[in-house]
Amino acid sequence: MTTRQDAEHLDRQDPLAALRQQFTLPDGLIYLDGNSLGVLPAATPARVAAVVQAEWGQGLIGSWNSAGWIHQPQRVGDKIARLVGAAPGELVVADSTSVNLFKVLSAAMRIQATEHRGAEPARRVIVSERENFPTDLYIAEGLAREAGWQLELLAADEIAARLAGERGRNVAVLMLTQVNYRTGRLHDMAAVTRAAHEAGALTVWDLAHSAGALPVDLNGTNADFAVGCGYKYLNGGPGAPAFVWVHPRHAGRFWQPLSGWMGHAAPFRFTPDYQPAPGVGRYLCGTPPVIAMAALECGVDTLLAAEPLGGMAALRAKSLALADFFLQLVDERCAGFGLGLATPRAHALRGSQVSLTHATHGYAIVQALIARGVVGDFRAGDAKDGLADILRFGFTPLYIGFVDVWNAVEQLVQVMQSGEYREARFNQRAAVT
Amino acid sequence: MTTRQDAEHLDRQDPLAALRQQFTLPDGLIYLDGNSLGVLPAATPARVAAVVQAEWGQGLIGSWNSAGWIHQPQRVGDKIARLVGAAPGELVVADSTSVNLFKVLSAAMRIQATEHRGAEPARRVIVSERENFPTDLYIAEGLAREAGWQLELLAADEIAARLAGERGRNVAVLMLTQVNYRTGRLHDMAAVTRAAHEAGALTVWDLAHSAGALPVDLNGTNADFAVGCGYKYLNGGPGAPAFVWVHPRHAGRFWQPLSGWMGHAAPFRFTPDYQPAPGVGRYLCGTPPVIAMAALECGVDTLLAAEPLGGMAALRAKSLALADFFLQLVDERCAGFGLGLATPRAHALRGSQVSLTHATHGYAIVQALIARGVVGDFRAGDAKDGLADILRFGFTPLYIGFVDVWNAVEQLVQVMQSGEYREARFNQRAAVT
Repeated sequence: MTTRQDAEHLDRQDPLAALRQQFTLPDGLIYLDGNSLGVLPAATPARVAAVVQAEWGQGLIGSWNSAGWIHQPQRVGDKIARLVGAAPGELVVADSTSVNLFKVLSAAMRIQATEHRGAEPARRVIVSERENFPTDLYIAEGLAREAGWQLELLAADEIAARLAGERGRNVAVLMLTQVNYRTGRLHDMAAVTRAAHEAGALTVWDLAHSAGALPVDLNGTNADFAVGCGYKYLNGGPGAPAFVWVHPRHAGRFWQPLSGWMGHAAPFRFTPDYQPAPGVGRYLCGTPPVIAMAALECGVDTLLAAEPLGGMAALRAKSLALADFFLQLVDERCAGFGLGLATPRAHALRGSQVSLTHATHGYAIVQALIARGVVGDFRAGDAKDGLADILRFGFTPLYIGFVDVWNAVEQLVQVMQSGEYREARFNQRAAVT
Repeated sequence: MTTRQDAEHLDRQDPLAALRQQFTLPDGLIYLDGNSLGVLPAATPARVAAVVQAEWGQGLIGSWNSAGWIHQPQRVGDKIARLVGAAPGELVVADSTSVNLFKVLSAAMRIQATEHRGAEPARRVIVSERENFPTDLYIAEGLAREAGWQLELLAADEIAARLAGERGRNVAVLMLTQVNYRTGRLHDMAAVTRAAHEAGALTVWDLAHSAGALPVDLNGTNADFAVGCGYKYLNGGPGAPAFVWVHPRHAGRFWQPLSGWMGHAAPFRFTPDYQPAPGVGRYLCGTPPVIAMAALECGVDTLLAAEPLGGMAALRAKSLALADFFLQLVDERCAGFGLGLATPRAHALRGSQVSLTHATHGYAIVQALIARGVVGDFRAGDAKDGLADILRFGFTPLYIGFVDVWNAVEQLVQVMQSGEYREARFNQRAAVT
């Protein structure tokens, strides 16, 4: 049987352990929800205060030049690019993940509509995963409806067959979240992109649960478009701005529909007609959110701090080790509690979270754990769609250690053994669950 | 001749003078650029720090419920509603002005396309003002291009004739910024909306230079759609989130195309299909920018603090008095300097800024003034379009007094008399001008 001493030993051997000092964490809390909202970097409050008090309060309008606000979307974008296998100048910070998805999916649809005009069969299907994060599906549903296209939702393991041979010929865009938000299942970006391209489809990747969680190689896998979230593994703060990447072979080809002034080739010339900026710059839209982006930059810096220690590869190794340790402890100590596993065990098939299932009391178990200082979260399933209720536990290697994992499972065991999760106080749903 | 003592007298009699204490302003600076970026409220740093350190840092994911983050777009929206004649529940804070304009213009186009399907002549023209802020024109240009509609740009005084009689029958949407960003010219929202409705057109109003600058009565004027900016007169900070209002008769009728999860009727049910929230809630898209919106709320509060003193009507009276005082001093003291006036003198025709012109050295004059501690800004004209170079001076009554205006004109006189604006150091253009 695994012991607490084993966890202590693993922490002592952890070459990344010192990275935790970059963060301000509440005393005694075990936070396994960095996949939903990353924690506060210790550097963020002072940086945000400087932007608010010095750059805005004292520098005022002059800070667009003197503090470099105008270049912030590119500067922070270049930092994120290092985490996801993109080159400098290929990625910008802008808007929300949903809005950026609208931009890139629109662009992908326009490219396909142009290249396959008059083709038989018409190439007008967007394929995605039924369990994809809902905002991705909603944005695609809206675009498909407006254009008279189809949005086709499949199970993850049905996608390869859908793309193969004759069947793939009407697929215009394959839109996937690399790591599923519910199950933590990981798509092989290289293989899926290759299959999509062989079918003549373009790929749109949502990196919400992979940027900052595992090595991503957008250029190496030859992806087409990607968006990602600033407030999960990038530790950018609640509602942080998102990012958008477009492969250079596409970036300059089309307008994206949100043709705002910051995506103009010369925004401060104030011409009445739109001339898109070269490359990914045209994926900017409105005025950049300066204060929020300063917080995001602090978060991104916490990941770049791992570069001398092996970078994303080292973080990934620790993330897998943490999740393996969790799985081992759950196997050893939680048999008979009615807990199932929704996340694949194979390293190649999972991201940085582990999702458990419980047929009846998933929500309440999560609430009982939170009351004990172990924060995971709950995602409701849907019997109609065959989706189980999910208890999510994120293992963010920047600030989680092996003793944290040990303690979390210890609390889980106590919650299950005591049956306290059946108490009414743990079964009342809050607005956000 | 007007004297400095006159200015001092006006300041002593100003019932709103104490409102300036709400702000942190750099010592000695006369900031006449609140129409571009509002100043820092004194309450903002502590509020932002509390959101960052307590709500995010300590409360973490639980703050979506415990700190009310999830209701923030509506709560702050209801506050802004009080400034623009909207009812509670009709206005939300979201995204940028450009993105919100895309939403409402799309919705207006869909409504018209549905209501006038098959009509002759086809109602497929968006009318706007040639001097409208470029991002508005770019967004409209993109939407018109995509839909095969026309964007028709007119001078402000050509609009009434365009809407009248037979000529108006193909106009679907009239999209205007209520106060022109260059000239400060003010449209009569009630009269223009009436003329548009008589022509069968819907109105989309950009309130970037009017919300917080003068009384706006969206419901009283029977407007259809409106968007506005958080970082100008609302003092929300650089790149603050924007707002969107939709008249209740339209709000529930159509999807807007940015159908993100926060606009879903039940975002945390995570259903794969989109069901729009009732009313204006569907105009939300992605996760709300919590930190930035907290700063915006502090800014909005500085305007609501004027409610016991007469609210927007009192602020408007002072704004006009400040600008009148400026015009009087320029008339008395700046003859022969080659300065012209681009802003109408009539109160009913101007917002809260005064724009001067200078044929050759507008940029350098503004730079020379900034070097002397008087911050206005410059907007380049375009000889091809017959647009003059503009020197903008914003008079934000929350924190500008009559002595400030006196001192600003005194510096302007010195800049012009000395000819120092001809020096090379004032003629080198920065990235943002």
